[in-house]
Amino acid sequence: MGSYMQMLTDRAKAAAVEAAKLGTADKNRGLLAVAEELVSQQEMILEENAKDVEAAKTKGIKQSLIDRLSLSEKRIADMAEGLRQIAALDDPVGEVLYMKTRPNGLRIGQKRVPLGVVGIIYESRPNVTADAFGLCFKTGNAAILRGGSDAIHSNQAIVRAVKGALRKEKLSQDLILLVEDTSREVAGEMMKMHGGIDVLIPRGGAGLIANVVENSTVPVIETGTGNCHIYVDASADIRMAAEIIENAKTQRLGVCNACESLVIHSGIIAEALPQIVGRLKAHNVEIRGDERACALSADIIPATEEDWGTEYLDAIISVKTVDSIDEAIAHINRYNTGHSESIITKDYYNALKFQDEIDAAAVYVNASTRFTDGFEFGFGAEIGISTQKLHARGPMGLEALTTTKYIVFGNGQIR
Amino acid sequence: MGSYMQMLTDRAKAAAVEAAKLGTADKNRGLLAVAEELVSQQEMILEENAKDVEAAKTKGIKQSLIDRLSLSEKRIADMAEGLRQIAALDDPVGEVLYMKTRPNGLRIGQKRVPLGVVGIIYESRPNVTADAFGLCFKTGNAAILRGGSDAIHSNQAIVRAVKGALRKEKLSQDLILLVEDTSREVAGEMMKMHGGIDVLIPRGGAGLIANVVENSTVPVIETGTGNCHIYVDASADIRMAAEIIENAKTQRLGVCNACESLVIHSGIIAEALPQIVGRLKAHNVEIRGDERACALSADIIPATEEDWGTEYLDAIISVKTVDSIDEAIAHINRYNTGHSESIITKDYYNALKFQDEIDAAAVYVNASTRFTDGFEFGFGAEIGISTQKLHARGPMGLEALTTTKYIVFGNGQIR
Repeated sequence: MGSYMQMLTDRAKAAAVEAAKLGTADKNRGLLAVAEELVSQQEMILEENAKDVEAAKTKGIKQSLIDRLSLSEKRIADMAEGLRQIAALDDPVGEVLYMKTRPNGLRIGQKRVPLGVVGIIYESRPNVTADAFGLCFKTGNAAILRGGSDAIHSNQAIVRAVKGALRKEKLSQDLILLVEDTSREVAGEMMKMHGGIDVLIPRGGAGLIANVVENSTVPVIETGTGNCHIYVDASADIRMAAEIIENAKTQRLGVCNACESLVIHSGIIAEALPQIVGRLKAHNVEIRGDERACALSADIIPATEEDWGTEYLDAIISVKTVDSIDEAIAHINRYNTGHSESIITKDYYNALKFQDEIDAAAVYVNASTRFTDGFEFGFGAEIGISTQKLHARGPMGLEALTTTKYIVFGNGQIR
Repeated sequence: MGSYMQMLTDRAKAAAVEAAKLGTADKNRGLLAVAEELVSQQEMILEENAKDVEAAKTKGIKQSLIDRLSLSEKRIADMAEGLRQIAALDDPVGEVLYMKTRPNGLRIGQKRVPLGVVGIIYESRPNVTADAFGLCFKTGNAAILRGGSDAIHSNQAIVRAVKGALRKEKLSQDLILLVEDTSREVAGEMMKMHGGIDVLIPRGGAGLIANVVENSTVPVIETGTGNCHIYVDASADIRMAAEIIENAKTQRLGVCNACESLVIHSGIIAEALPQIVGRLKAHNVEIRGDERACALSADIIPATEEDWGTEYLDAIISVKTVDSIDEAIAHINRYNTGHSESIITKDYYNALKFQDEIDAAAVYVNASTRFTDGFEFGFGAEIGISTQKLHARGPMGLEALTTTKYIVFGNGQIR
């Protein structure tokens, strides 16, 4: 007798075999049917969501988390619209990336194919349930979804609607499988399903991601922690620097591509800092700086060593003074999380040096780090932002949910 | 105080930062210098290798392993030649895969960059030491090499020669770091260096690979186990089938792309099997078949369920009879290891169906599975053959040792 997770992965595997055979038209038909079903089932979904929200309030969960958990007609309409957008995207599956003929006549090509079974472990945003399913299904994969226990009723309701649409369209209902036992034991078991799950993508806070990396035997794509820096070079356009910093820090606080730390060249800090501080203070941002920064502004409080490595996800920013671009690069490469880093400069050589030497998924010149996003990058979708170097790095669109296989056509070749 | 592995990874990281800045000409100069040094130091290397071979004989290690362990002037010359070939290859680092301008004017490009620190865990083939270093160095990475304890003197000697050449060329000697403590504890620690090692590539038997997958928090690329099948379809050219099977089984026995199992359509088995058995028996291959196969030839002994899942790496092959291509595909997808599978057929639809539905790194029509190899595929090098789906699948050339980063050029863009 297999375990609960074994049963789920067996079903997902069988569904994935069928999904891989589906044409783009069939997948798009399925996505549109699911979108329609979500809207037509919104009353049921909202009722179930209300149970989760009620329970969360009773447990005294903080308001920002309750906001993430709460669904509304608008949010369900957005989920449906997201699926329609996924339907409208090009299908990456089946693309032959190249084909060459070898001297012995073998024709060797590399073709994009689905990964198979994609596992996603996330927290209490029920909209991820529909979104992750849509991206996995469009790429011919089966999805095993393990959401947070706080969202279990909402997730069950969404999955019920998705399965209803799949059934009507004569597609396998096992293309979406919800891990309904949200215990830690079952999550741990999911991480050990090497061979049953092809990739595990954790979406959530740093603790969740670290736990998956530590315990998984399934290949993991790490996503999302961003201790992002903006470096104001000696030659920066100060007004541009201030605008970009204001945007990158304050346009949205709790996101991984928000700026958490400022690095400023000592040759420009006296002139630049007042403008930057003025803009940040207008948004009530707490500014924690090193000695030289503190000396320049009464609005800056002293930073500690811990600040340099902290992703605040809040209205706080740190300020570090450096005497050279090399010092800036060394500081950033020491403390960053491999997400997004930006230099503000007019200097050609410093722009290239920063892009060459900073080790991160996205390295910017004269732009806000907030652009690191699948939609902003033009992918039309995003399953997460990879901060690791294997398989996918940076915003992940549909292609990140595919692998390749070599297809070889011969006429009797032997070695 | 950091541990031994922490010290090694810190040194490797610092070396990797420098390696990433090297131009192709510098890297090629280094590779050629190392090649020369290996040859000029061959006496020292052979003396040290003799100690390992002696010890292995005393321990009663089997002859095939002693053959792998043993170096000779010819093998050292081959190692040097391998490095010269790597020098002659195109450098993948720095290639911009695409660059597009977004509606807001941001120019977003994706650039190929080194992975950073590559860890390789292997068994007792000392030639892997020079080869793995060469591939990692060409791609701007630092290499941490953990070879088998049986080859420690040989590996130390090779690494000494490599470091000597690096020193002469004023390159960091930490670009190659040998784990000289070959205890299991230190290997275990190496697998936990998440953040210090960017990727771990195990090269060796199934047990080694399973151990690394099970215990590593560092992203792993699984390589090399191959339970490869050849399916003889009802419409096959029987002479071609027999030739390909003879080649795939017997041209080299102990390799991962050798054929381990034959699947034959019942409509052709009576005619095809005698020819196939004749060719295999001429090479003294033991043939283990299902009931229908056994009934057709006195040279076939009964197979057990265990045979279908076994990678023999020996002069043994299994034979399974099927009544349809669907049954063949289901059998292969159940028992294969995701390496290489081939169909012998004249039927257009069956050829495409097999390529579409078989889940493996390389899927062949009318050719030997023995071609799954970086050199045969035209990559000019091979760090291993990936049997997983993330990052790289199939033979891995230099590109598999790189990642990408997004480079974004703006002129003040904010969200």
